[in-house]
Amino acid sequence: MTAQDQLTVGTAELEELAARLSPGALTTDPDVIDAHSSDEALFCPREGAIALVRATSAEEVQEVMRFATEHRTPVVPQGARSGISGGANGSPGAILLNVSKMKDVVRVNEAERLVTVQPGIINQDLKDHLAPFGLSYPPDPGSVALSSIGGNIATNAGGLCCVKYGVTRDYVRSLKVVLADGTLTTLGPETAKGVAGLDMRHLFIGSEGTLGIVVEVTLRLIPALPDPFTAIATFPDERSGLQTVADFMAIGGEPSLLEFLDGSSLKMLNAYGDFGLDSDAGSMLIMQVDRNPADSEAEMSRFAEVAGRCGALDVAYSDDPTDSAALIAARRMIQPAYEKFAHSHGGGQLLDDVCVPRTAVPEFYDHLKRLQKSSGLEIALVAHAGDGNTHPSVFFDAGDAEEVAMAEEVFAEIMRVGLELGGTITGEHGVGYLKKDWLPHELDEGSRRIQVAVKNALDPLGILNPGKMLDAL
Amino acid sequence: MTAQDQLTVGTAELEELAARLSPGALTTDPDVIDAHSSDEALFCPREGAIALVRATSAEEVQEVMRFATEHRTPVVPQGARSGISGGANGSPGAILLNVSKMKDVVRVNEAERLVTVQPGIINQDLKDHLAPFGLSYPPDPGSVALSSIGGNIATNAGGLCCVKYGVTRDYVRSLKVVLADGTLTTLGPETAKGVAGLDMRHLFIGSEGTLGIVVEVTLRLIPALPDPFTAIATFPDERSGLQTVADFMAIGGEPSLLEFLDGSSLKMLNAYGDFGLDSDAGSMLIMQVDRNPADSEAEMSRFAEVAGRCGALDVAYSDDPTDSAALIAARRMIQPAYEKFAHSHGGGQLLDDVCVPRTAVPEFYDHLKRLQKSSGLEIALVAHAGDGNTHPSVFFDAGDAEEVAMAEEVFAEIMRVGLELGGTITGEHGVGYLKKDWLPHELDEGSRRIQVAVKNALDPLGILNPGKMLDAL
Repeated sequence: MTAQDQLTVGTAELEELAARLSPGALTTDPDVIDAHSSDEALFCPREGAIALVRATSAEEVQEVMRFATEHRTPVVPQGARSGISGGANGSPGAILLNVSKMKDVVRVNEAERLVTVQPGIINQDLKDHLAPFGLSYPPDPGSVALSSIGGNIATNAGGLCCVKYGVTRDYVRSLKVVLADGTLTTLGPETAKGVAGLDMRHLFIGSEGTLGIVVEVTLRLIPALPDPFTAIATFPDERSGLQTVADFMAIGGEPSLLEFLDGSSLKMLNAYGDFGLDSDAGSMLIMQVDRNPADSEAEMSRFAEVAGRCGALDVAYSDDPTDSAALIAARRMIQPAYEKFAHSHGGGQLLDDVCVPRTAVPEFYDHLKRLQKSSGLEIALVAHAGDGNTHPSVFFDAGDAEEVAMAEEVFAEIMRVGLELGGTITGEHGVGYLKKDWLPHELDEGSRRIQVAVKNALDPLGILNPGKMLDAL
Repeated sequence: MTAQDQLTVGTAELEELAARLSPGALTTDPDVIDAHSSDEALFCPREGAIALVRATSAEEVQEVMRFATEHRTPVVPQGARSGISGGANGSPGAILLNVSKMKDVVRVNEAERLVTVQPGIINQDLKDHLAPFGLSYPPDPGSVALSSIGGNIATNAGGLCCVKYGVTRDYVRSLKVVLADGTLTTLGPETAKGVAGLDMRHLFIGSEGTLGIVVEVTLRLIPALPDPFTAIATFPDERSGLQTVADFMAIGGEPSLLEFLDGSSLKMLNAYGDFGLDSDAGSMLIMQVDRNPADSEAEMSRFAEVAGRCGALDVAYSDDPTDSAALIAARRMIQPAYEKFAHSHGGGQLLDDVCVPRTAVPEFYDHLKRLQKSSGLEIALVAHAGDGNTHPSVFFDAGDAEEVAMAEEVFAEIMRVGLELGGTITGEHGVGYLKKDWLPHELDEGSRRIQVAVKNALDPLGILNPGKMLDAL
């Protein structure tokens, strides 16, 4: 659809829609719209939305999509707006369709180890709800306390536990979805296996609101995770830490978590709060194993041995859940710590999400160091290292046009290096607006062509989150 | 595409195609075509193919698809033809495009735990190839010794280990696929995580050759599986065995395999060979755990306790790999045992593949018993019980039209019951020809509509495996 095809929606039409929704669900207040027009991404367009609907039911989502189809109105599906690729940002003439009020746990099925929820529920709230049942929903993006399950599905979110427990996709059994024309459909049976027809549920996972709107989801659960053993290893430099990861995984290491923090990240964390971390270390690894005590202990020794061989300054481990929780809490403070650092250094931070083959991470890091040197910008790195999923941050003075341009160039160069090493431009954050121009660098022409064909087949009017992720070829 | 749109392909055109392929790759010999026109399914159309191409490279697959697009010729992708839904069967005017000669291991990447193979490699051959590396590819359909990885991807095959290790989908990292027009494209990065764009690789998995032809695949591997502990429990009847499964899973049991055989299956197995099984038992469970010895032993006790409470006649277990292998080998003999029984009872066997919530299996079984009584036909059941994936077989006299009709009716009724219990018509075998008419009973109109839209978007001429899985609405 081109811009010319878009019909003009005026106050009268929006009032008509409002009348079909619960009182107050639709607002055209410019301030409220503005406040809901962006997620956490930088440098992404956000202007032009004409209304915000806070849906309270699948029926309301259907009403909005019927209206949108009738009037060819763009719709931006939103949840907690904690994304960092601009996927939930406003766009010209669009209705922001926010589902964060739809946050109920519909049912817990203990015998089948399933939970059915609305999309707006926050990931951590779901985890807390399940704890009394002795059940666990593993996926734990860094934003676990902020992001909603609907958003996690939209980006196929990962997190810290992926190295053992996989990503959001691995836990989705069944989706209820509202299509572009307002049709409500169920995708996937709730059974452990099922192959009847093309698997639309897997197509929708990671589709960033471009194919339809998830209004209910049934997730597979596992028995409550046992308390982990946690090892912490410090290194004189980054490369020795990263080499430890590569070597440990190559000998068959099976951590349930394996996080890397470089020296810059450690310094920023220490400047943010007292977590008892060695601020002089060149890098740090946090490694967890959550098997039985004997196996966990054996794995700790194996890890300590590899780390020692790679030149670790210190390796310690603990089976105390409080220690473990404190360490992971410190790791989760990295983004606020980055923000504090950015705040006192001109305000700018670009967070990347390049995933490379895990053996390529040391080489990837060497490139980062070179980029830091050539650009003069501070670059810090945390990584879900066991998966090769890196999150470099580029810091810059947001008020200095030259630095901004340089930061964007470095950000792009990081993706280019990732691709050269056999990686992807986004491991778990999604494409949104932020990386749209980079998609053709990763995906060949045939792959993009069928993606566009699928998008057009499901959203022929181009009203679902237009301008995000995919452009027409 | 309607039949009228199909252009007529004559000998001259096929000779032109043959000239573009390696010598002997294309044949129009009617006997050879006939011998390649079906998989293992009964009651499915198979007539009308005009040529067989035994492709030896991705380039040859591309040549065939370019030709097919130019001439609007249907193409039936084939591998080992071990499927049981007719997905690989011939169809009118079609070229059978067989990739079973493309069976190389392209590379093993030990450090990343990945293997890249051509689609024709047999699942067991891949497993054998990986053993010396200390690596394992878990998915193990019953047909592990016969079926190819390409076919496993086409149906998202499962198997015995799924209850712990998941299905084919869970191990696919990257696919090289030839599209309807002959374009070669790569779907998915090889990295542990990756969310750049719509996930076409997951769309292709389970698509039964209707969207394109897989010519190379990179699979995720895991460290070699440890030797399991194996428990065997016998019961006076079926319900007590099935109740054991439901109860054991409900208390958080975590088997790596949990197979159920009913009394009829046991009798047929014993008539087929001497596996040392109790032929008088009403049912049997085989349960494996492959953790460390202490945990495995504890899980065995937990299982024995549950089985005892449910009325088991006997529970025994062993940590001897030879015993385990023998038991699983016996379980894998069930299909030949069924065939022997069928052979002496009129020749007919319809094998179903209904997956239900695992707590619903006992109720499902009661329905089977009623059906057996009302139809007078023998029905036997094996099940990947830990997943609720059941394989009832209906036996009948293939020469007796009335019995054939009755068997087809029972087969359908089994699917109907499965759907009523919240299940699916196919857990792992696929739809093919066999269950095509049943798809509308499982999938709502919206779901079917978007599936057809996706199919048309990727295969606008309708040349890829036409008549299988999906019909236009």
